[in-house]
Amino acid sequence: MRNFKLTVAYDGSEFHGWQIQPGQRTIQGALSEIAGKLTGERVTVHGAGRTDAGVHALGQVANFRTRSGLDPGEFQRAFNALLPATIRVLAAEEVAPEFHARWQAVAKTYRYRIARGRVVSPFAWRYALHYPFSLDEAAMAAAAPLVEGEHDFSSFAASSGSEADDRERSPVRLIFRSELIRREPSGGAGGVPSVAEDLSAGPELVYVVRGRSFLRHMVRKICGTLLEVGRGKFRPEDIPPLFELRDRSRSGPTVAPHGLYLVSVEYPEPWRIGSP
Amino acid sequence: MRNFKLTVAYDGSEFHGWQIQPGQRTIQGALSEIAGKLTGERVTVHGAGRTDAGVHALGQVANFRTRSGLDPGEFQRAFNALLPATIRVLAAEEVAPEFHARWQAVAKTYRYRIARGRVVSPFAWRYALHYPFSLDEAAMAAAAPLVEGEHDFSSFAASSGSEADDRERSPVRLIFRSELIRREPSGGAGGVPSVAEDLSAGPELVYVVRGRSFLRHMVRKICGTLLEVGRGKFRPEDIPPLFELRDRSRSGPTVAPHGLYLVSVEYPEPWRIGSP
Repeated sequence: MRNFKLTVAYDGSEFHGWQIQPGQRTIQGALSEIAGKLTGERVTVHGAGRTDAGVHALGQVANFRTRSGLDPGEFQRAFNALLPATIRVLAAEEVAPEFHARWQAVAKTYRYRIARGRVVSPFAWRYALHYPFSLDEAAMAAAAPLVEGEHDFSSFAASSGSEADDRERSPVRLIFRSELIRREPSGGAGGVPSVAEDLSAGPELVYVVRGRSFLRHMVRKICGTLLEVGRGKFRPEDIPPLFELRDRSRSGPTVAPHGLYLVSVEYPEPWRIGSP
Repeated sequence: MRNFKLTVAYDGSEFHGWQIQPGQRTIQGALSEIAGKLTGERVTVHGAGRTDAGVHALGQVANFRTRSGLDPGEFQRAFNALLPATIRVLAAEEVAPEFHARWQAVAKTYRYRIARGRVVSPFAWRYALHYPFSLDEAAMAAAAPLVEGEHDFSSFAASSGSEADDRERSPVRLIFRSELIRREPSGGAGGVPSVAEDLSAGPELVYVVRGRSFLRHMVRKICGTLLEVGRGKFRPEDIPPLFELRDRSRSGPTVAPHGLYLVSVEYPEPWRIGSP
């Protein structure tokens, strides 16, 4: 068997999430169906993270095993020819047989966008949470790093359902980086157009979190809690006790999925066959 | 009668262009219908440029006249509450009675985006022409400024139909700036996330043109001609003779609408009532 690694971007707006579900349009379903067509085999494409319905990806990683003789470039072109334009295979490579996109991942980075302009641009409404109301952004920025480190994230988990990363039954997770950044619109300075098409976009808050793995809804619950800090319902110092409480009803709400992006997935070493 | 000026952004993907047409979803139709509802009057919203089906706007300008007692902020909020999320009123102000978005415009700026990456991102395919093939970009950049100045643009006009700006029957138009810019993806440097959500985006060519007014399809015909320069079918020095030929079959093709943006519209003086 050969093993192929795919780096995949998708606009999650029109999908019922990553995970294959009968009768639903899902990313894993679309990729697995096409992999089956291309190889004539029954193929399951395994992803690093099971993104929920509406969540986007800039660099999801997946792998599948096959006896096919196609090379990685042929797979990439064929996938992109058959997939909808809302899913793109950015890279394909052959990897060692033991590579598994999910089990071998050592870190994942997620990003959550909060549009702060009074009006949300027609180009951003599918891709950022619009929150035009008053926020203590300094308090939010101070609170964000307080989830770094190893903690019991039970207070930030989904109420039910499978976890996004159920490798471990334990709700303890390790977060390397948790940061809230304010971004001013970059476009149009000096009359030079930005690659970002949207000069009408206002400022944004971008929450970036990098960790080994995450509980289901964890990033969105952290964001919801940071918004509660911004609204003055929590202080930054209320965050650490939430780890002790292990009670999801005590943290903030789960914010909407359309602001969330799986940015990248990291692996411990080059898995590519034939890499130097 | 009072006169209100609107600055409007829209994602043109799902509209049959600006101009009102029976039985079609158009921007002017949506705005006029809502203006009618808000005022209880029969209102036509006049736009500065009649963008074609699929063309986007970052800063279209429009105006409408009414006896309504609503103030500009009330109009803006009401429009945005009733419009689809793909159309946003970015600003509203009361202007002098003689202001007309189209007749008083002294300059308009359009932009055309050409995605140059091998794979087009799932977030860009609706918003840029994907042209991954080899192009002599230096020749294109040299050719772009050759349309600056006052010329007969008959070779760059639509084959039929009304002109985008039919103020003048003459096909002579004045172009202040015509420039092709290469933009590398800006995102992710130093680990700081870009406001642009799309780190998977490759480099782009952005054509920027500012002129007093434009013939219908003119920007897209100029872009199609620049692409022919890039492909080696024209040299830059083949551009100026096209003005003499006055034959649209001799220039390049009309490129797809979804890469085109009406960026801004300029007026000669502050028309706002009560401005200092």
